[in-house]
Amino acid sequence: MNGVTGRMGYRQHLVGSILAIRERGGLALPGGAVIWPEPVLVGRDAGKLAAIAARHGLADWTTSLDEALADPGVEVYFDAQVTTRRAAAVRAAVAAGKHVYTEKPLAATLAEALDLVRVAADAGVRGGVVQDKLFLPGMIKLRRLVEGGVLGRILSVRGEFGYWVFDGGWQPAQRPSWNYRAADGGGIILDMFPHWRYLLDHIVAPVRSVYATGATHIPLRYDEDGKPYDATADDAAYAIFELDGGAVAQVNSSWAVRVHRDELVEFQVDGTEASAVAGLHDCRLQHRGGTPRPRWDPDTPVTDDFRSQWQLVPGNTVPIGAGPASSGLAGAGAVAPSHSFLAQWELFLAHVIAGAPYRHDLLEGAKGVQLAELGMASWREGRRLAVPALQP
Amino acid sequence: MNGVTGRMGYRQHLVGSILAIRERGGLALPGGAVIWPEPVLVGRDAGKLAAIAARHGLADWTTSLDEALADPGVEVYFDAQVTTRRAAAVRAAVAAGKHVYTEKPLAATLAEALDLVRVAADAGVRGGVVQDKLFLPGMIKLRRLVEGGVLGRILSVRGEFGYWVFDGGWQPAQRPSWNYRAADGGGIILDMFPHWRYLLDHIVAPVRSVYATGATHIPLRYDEDGKPYDATADDAAYAIFELDGGAVAQVNSSWAVRVHRDELVEFQVDGTEASAVAGLHDCRLQHRGGTPRPRWDPDTPVTDDFRSQWQLVPGNTVPIGAGPASSGLAGAGAVAPSHSFLAQWELFLAHVIAGAPYRHDLLEGAKGVQLAELGMASWREGRRLAVPALQP
Amino acid sequence: MNGVTGRMGYRQHLVGSILAIRERGGLALPGGAVIWPEPVLVGRDAGKLAAIAARHGLADWTTSLDEALADPGVEVYFDAQVTTRRAAAVRAAVAAGKHVYTEKPLAATLAEALDLVRVAADAGVRGGVVQDKLFLPGMIKLRRLVEGGVLGRILSVRGEFGYWVFDGGWQPAQRPSWNYRAADGGGIILDMFPHWRYLLDHIVAPVRSVYATGATHIPLRYDEDGKPYDATADDAAYAIFELDGGAVAQVNSSWAVRVHRDELVEFQVDGTEASAVAGLHDCRLQHRGGTPRPRWDPDTPVTDDFRSQWQLVPGNTVPIGAGPASSGLAGAGAVAPSHSFLAQWELFLAHVIAGAPYRHDLLEGAKGVQLAELGMASWREGRRLAVPALQP
Amino acid sequence: MNGVTGRMGYRQHLVGSILAIRERGGLALPGGAVIWPEPVLVGRDAGKLAAIAARHGLADWTTSLDEALADPGVEVYFDAQVTTRRAAAVRAAVAAGKHVYTEKPLAATLAEALDLVRVAADAGVRGGVVQDKLFLPGMIKLRRLVEGGVLGRILSVRGEFGYWVFDGGWQPAQRPSWNYRAADGGGIILDMFPHWRYLLDHIVAPVRSVYATGATHIPLRYDEDGKPYDATADDAAYAIFELDGGAVAQVNSSWAVRVHRDELVEFQVDGTEASAVAGLHDCRLQHRGGTPRPRWDPDTPVTDDFRSQWQLVPGNTVPIGAGPASSGLAGAGAVAPSHSFLAQWELFLAHVIAGAPYRHDLLEGAKGVQLAELGMASWREGRRLAVPALQP
Repeated sequence: MNGVTGRMGYRQHLVGSILAIRERGGLALPGGAVIWPEPVLVGRDAGKLAAIAARHGLADWTTSLDEALADPGVEVYFDAQVTTRRAAAVRAAVAAGKHVYTEKPLAATLAEALDLVRVAADAGVRGGVVQDKLFLPGMIKLRRLVEGGVLGRILSVRGEFGYWVFDGGWQPAQRPSWNYRAADGGGIILDMFPHWRYLLDHIVAPVRSVYATGATHIPLRYDEDGKPYDATADDAAYAIFELDGGAVAQVNSSWAVRVHRDELVEFQVDGTEASAVAGLHDCRLQHRGGTPRPRWDPDTPVTDDFRSQWQLVPGNTVPIGAGPASSGLAGAGAVAPSHSFLAQWELFLAHVIAGAPYRHDLLEGAKGVQLAELGMASWREGRRLAVPALQP
Repeated sequence: MNGVTGRMGYRQHLVGSILAIRERGGLALPGGAVIWPEPVLVGRDAGKLAAIAARHGLADWTTSLDEALADPGVEVYFDAQVTTRRAAAVRAAVAAGKHVYTEKPLAATLAEALDLVRVAADAGVRGGVVQDKLFLPGMIKLRRLVEGGVLGRILSVRGEFGYWVFDGGWQPAQRPSWNYRAADGGGIILDMFPHWRYLLDHIVAPVRSVYATGATHIPLRYDEDGKPYDATADDAAYAIFELDGGAVAQVNSSWAVRVHRDELVEFQVDGTEASAVAGLHDCRLQHRGGTPRPRWDPDTPVTDDFRSQWQLVPGNTVPIGAGPASSGLAGAGAVAPSHSFLAQWELFLAHVIAGAPYRHDLLEGAKGVQLAELGMASWREGRRLAVPALQP
Repeated sequence: MNGVTGRMGYRQHLVGSILAIRERGGLALPGGAVIWPEPVLVGRDAGKLAAIAARHGLADWTTSLDEALADPGVEVYFDAQVTTRRAAAVRAAVAAGKHVYTEKPLAATLAEALDLVRVAADAGVRGGVVQDKLFLPGMIKLRRLVEGGVLGRILSVRGEFGYWVFDGGWQPAQRPSWNYRAADGGGIILDMFPHWRYLLDHIVAPVRSVYATGATHIPLRYDEDGKPYDATADDAAYAIFELDGGAVAQVNSSWAVRVHRDELVEFQVDGTEASAVAGLHDCRLQHRGGTPRPRWDPDTPVTDDFRSQWQLVPGNTVPIGAGPASSGLAGAGAVAPSHSFLAQWELFLAHVIAGAPYRHDLLEGAKGVQLAELGMASWREGRRLAVPALQP
Repeated sequence: MNGVTGRMGYRQHLVGSILAIRERGGLALPGGAVIWPEPVLVGRDAGKLAAIAARHGLADWTTSLDEALADPGVEVYFDAQVTTRRAAAVRAAVAAGKHVYTEKPLAATLAEALDLVRVAADAGVRGGVVQDKLFLPGMIKLRRLVEGGVLGRILSVRGEFGYWVFDGGWQPAQRPSWNYRAADGGGIILDMFPHWRYLLDHIVAPVRSVYATGATHIPLRYDEDGKPYDATADDAAYAIFELDGGAVAQVNSSWAVRVHRDELVEFQVDGTEASAVAGLHDCRLQHRGGTPRPRWDPDTPVTDDFRSQWQLVPGNTVPIGAGPASSGLAGAGAVAPSHSFLAQWELFLAHVIAGAPYRHDLLEGAKGVQLAELGMASWREGRRLAVPALQP
């Protein structure tokens, strides 16, 4: 596990997934076998690695990736490093014959991402890319509605993601400063379009074209030391995607917007039979049988309480604890499960160990990079760009 | 007044404005003079005209536009006909030396609209186009915030307009069928982009470019007689406008969307100092001093009730009764004032009679047509189009 | 730690601060070093000291202050005794070369307080005085608004502190009887004006003049044994302070007032851009963009719900757990942190051990005593008194 | 009736009182006689007077005060002119042998006010000054509580009056610009201290001393034509009054404060037995039997909802319709009664016609001017000033 000294690598992957699986007694496979993951921690800071290992009673850690990859007992290489360091490490792991599981974005460019897809295929190893939002309860409920035909033919998607990230000059920023520097791999398009790709592809329909207008709304920010710096990356993007089958998905992403929503990200999906509004946690439904018939007459008062006309979709088979922790448990012990990440880890481990089917492979990761790259190009060129099928 | 047998011409213009001005004792000018409007009703259906005239004790009506225009006592020609009949009638009125006040869109094409601007200028008559939304309380409040510097530098606008128009096959449609036929002047782009143009231009900043994706989400509808027909016009449009000064305005318009909002149209305007969410009636504010600092951490619960963190903007100097009638008065008598229309009528009458300044002239009307035309072209061509300054 | 058998010394300082720091693993300094406080308990009641030491597993306690001060391992002397015993003990600690941290008021008179400032300076030891209210979340939020320019130019402050302290003759009093006897150091001016001084000085602007009217509203009270006694100290004070820059701060303090407020103390600060109403916990904001425009017309009904027109200021960077405990944790164990006291202890320890900057020094303590003394004089003399700069 | 072309003279006095008495069939006296007031309108603008007379079917109006005073049928002179013109007119009326009823302040200086008291006494005519707030329901309820002994011995009064008057540069000001110019008789002390005088004197206890700090918080304002002007009068005053019997009344008045209250003016009166919080409309009570016993412990959360612990005082014998109009009646007809003004007019008419007792005489008016004058002096001199008994 490379990159577990970072916040996400440590909390979501090591503690919230791998250690949580161990805490639960391992991952039981259908045939009765149990997968017991033994993590080897890899990183550049020996002190931090040792501290983490000690805290969780883990014996295996090293600052040498080569050493870890040379260990024949290691079956899976996991990567949560910064994007710029990912491709080389993945390539080395593949060369060592390891299966590969990585954070998104898979690479900084589509060419590089596709190259990783090819080398892994050539080496016959299995690969996976994190697509965690698919495993959050709001998205699970939305997908259930779509797959169950509840919405009918889907017409359109509205996505709104964002919140106000302070510029650091008055109240401290709640995101790292590299996010706002293009040279450091920052930018909201590169960060979020991979998410929009897999959410649209898997839940609604494959993305066929993109038009995007990016912006750097806040050009001057203050870094972790309070020093001013030029924000060179996009901090907002306004996009229109066309989907297979004719639906239109209009999605805004912004770190410079104040939140007048229920959740930080929300998708409204309208269909002939019904519409849904889903966040990461909750999902609301309005069926055509409960659809009001307002008239557009600005001179008469709005008397409908429109939001009250939607019904909360129940969790039903959504795994208990999936998504935002609602109890105090998360803070109580050392091993608070990150349910959405854990769910995908379990799928991946079952895939590499037992050959279970798995959809979130490296080509999926490349598709996310592709959409971000096309979004940037569309913004530069001022035109809609087709999203071609990828040749792996 | 041509077109008062139609719903809008009758309710908003004849009754809600002209008769309401008379009910109030006429329009008092600063110098002490009083304008007393004497309407001449013009239309094609003598029976309907006679009935309206009788209902309101009006003597003057005719089915001959020529006859009305020949009357030297008539000073203003008003047009609320369907768009396709407007240009010819306006041209005749101008030729007869009348001032002209018309509903929007001014014409079906920019070329025609600009031609009307020119002939009116050449004839030395004054012209005006309805831009009623500017006079509704939500927009008045929003404009006050912007002009008072409350929002700081404006970064972005999100506009969401729409509701579910039934297709007429199950529950009856709440819009006329011609709205959905391109050949009859239908289409949401032609209908709504003129509104977006003046709202953005006057309240935020002039529109400099447009990208739009239109759609006909519901291709089969049922008309007033219950017969199926092909919807050939766009019933939804997803647009991204760039504004003077760098702000981005993303505006969706749809007759095929279910409403999860407070009002049928809402604009969120984000600025460095504060953000506002305004409908036609209400306006809410969140200042940076009250802006929360959420973290994007899908694994932890959302505990903020984000919508409660906005404050309702008080009406203060918004004219009593402006916008949606909030008292029972509106329904009590035959002459319920249409405050937003009435306010603009008063400005226009003071303009043509007493030379008061007036911003909502025919060129403004042409700008609305221009944006609609460019929006259609952008959709066809799949690219962002500049919005050039108009040469009147 | 002298005075830990008293309620505040025990709960806020020993348990809530020193033991809480130990519970957290000590206080980490920027360079990586960790401060580990080892308390020596000093007091007059050996039995109580022994019991406290036993309860918390502490070895070091003594009834001899001299003995404690003679210990070369002791670096800091802390004082939470009654005010009348403080000066002598602090002087002894300074003479022994200890740094000094004390409760407020620093002394009973300004002359004595300034003398302590001088002897500490001469001895080269560092000193600090408790100014805990600055570290409570309501005050942190208010200060953030002021420092961020949200309020604009500040015009005025209204402070209202107080509640009904029962006289002990029917329901028992909820304050000790010495608070109401002048000879014992009682009186609300001496108790509260030091707080008003640092809150105004640090958050709004330095206090430049004072006018105060004191009162003993309830002249007869009943003590801890139910015996009547004459209340000789002031139990209420009505003050008007002028601040640097021209703002006026009107502050009432009373133990004979019933509470029609959200919190026991509240400050309303009005500025050109916005106003805030802050208690110790919550803070509300009304920006000029959301300011109503009421008319003073007693004949027409008030229809505004004025309080609903204020927005709650979010905590954002207010330290988790700061101020009133909002979770059940505070009551769960023996070591409930007193976050506001703990925060200042950490600043002070970092100051004396590592030389970190520190604002709440003995001169600050003298300023509090100064304002109380001038307030008493103003009351006696019936005139406004200037607050001169102190010569340390 | 002199000054009925002004807003208050017209609405509250002519229409809301005199015409309302006629509408009700006159004022019935105990013995069965009925007073039927016949107003003679006096003013400087013939056009306005004629219009008012026509609107209400009144025959008698004149621009000559001498002419009106020469009419032997006229028994009462009423004055609602601007303060600077009042003394001369009142003197002329007294010389003509008329009884006198005037708006407040009675005069611009105490000397002038006392002179009017003397000349009226010498002439043997009766006089009255408007003290309308005493007749509003909130004050009636408060007075009932005090007079009924419900509050016990009164300890203190807190008064808070004010709201945000816009400076006219962004949103228009809701008060006339002369209010902010000292040379034109402006200033909040001169405007409001007369009210505080009679409310305290009549409801709680006579005022014995005053300390006041005035301020001009907003030094630059914009007048009715949008032109900037220097605000030279006080727009806020922070006062501490000592009352007969030892209670302290602390009263703030401000046109530069945002409202976090239920009403624009509120008085909290604390007594040994109970406390009351009264606005002009509502009054709330907390008896000692329902008084909570909060502890001052900033480290523990406030769990009391203090405001819910007060009980609304019922109207009982408060005249129906007294105070703010709560029905739609006020706007429906031409003669909406101004209940508080009307009540005092009835008392005055019964006094001058039938010799009924009357408390609100010219000496009462002089007391109001006295308190304003002493308040200004106290501010200048920085000291508490005694309020001597007036020798009429």
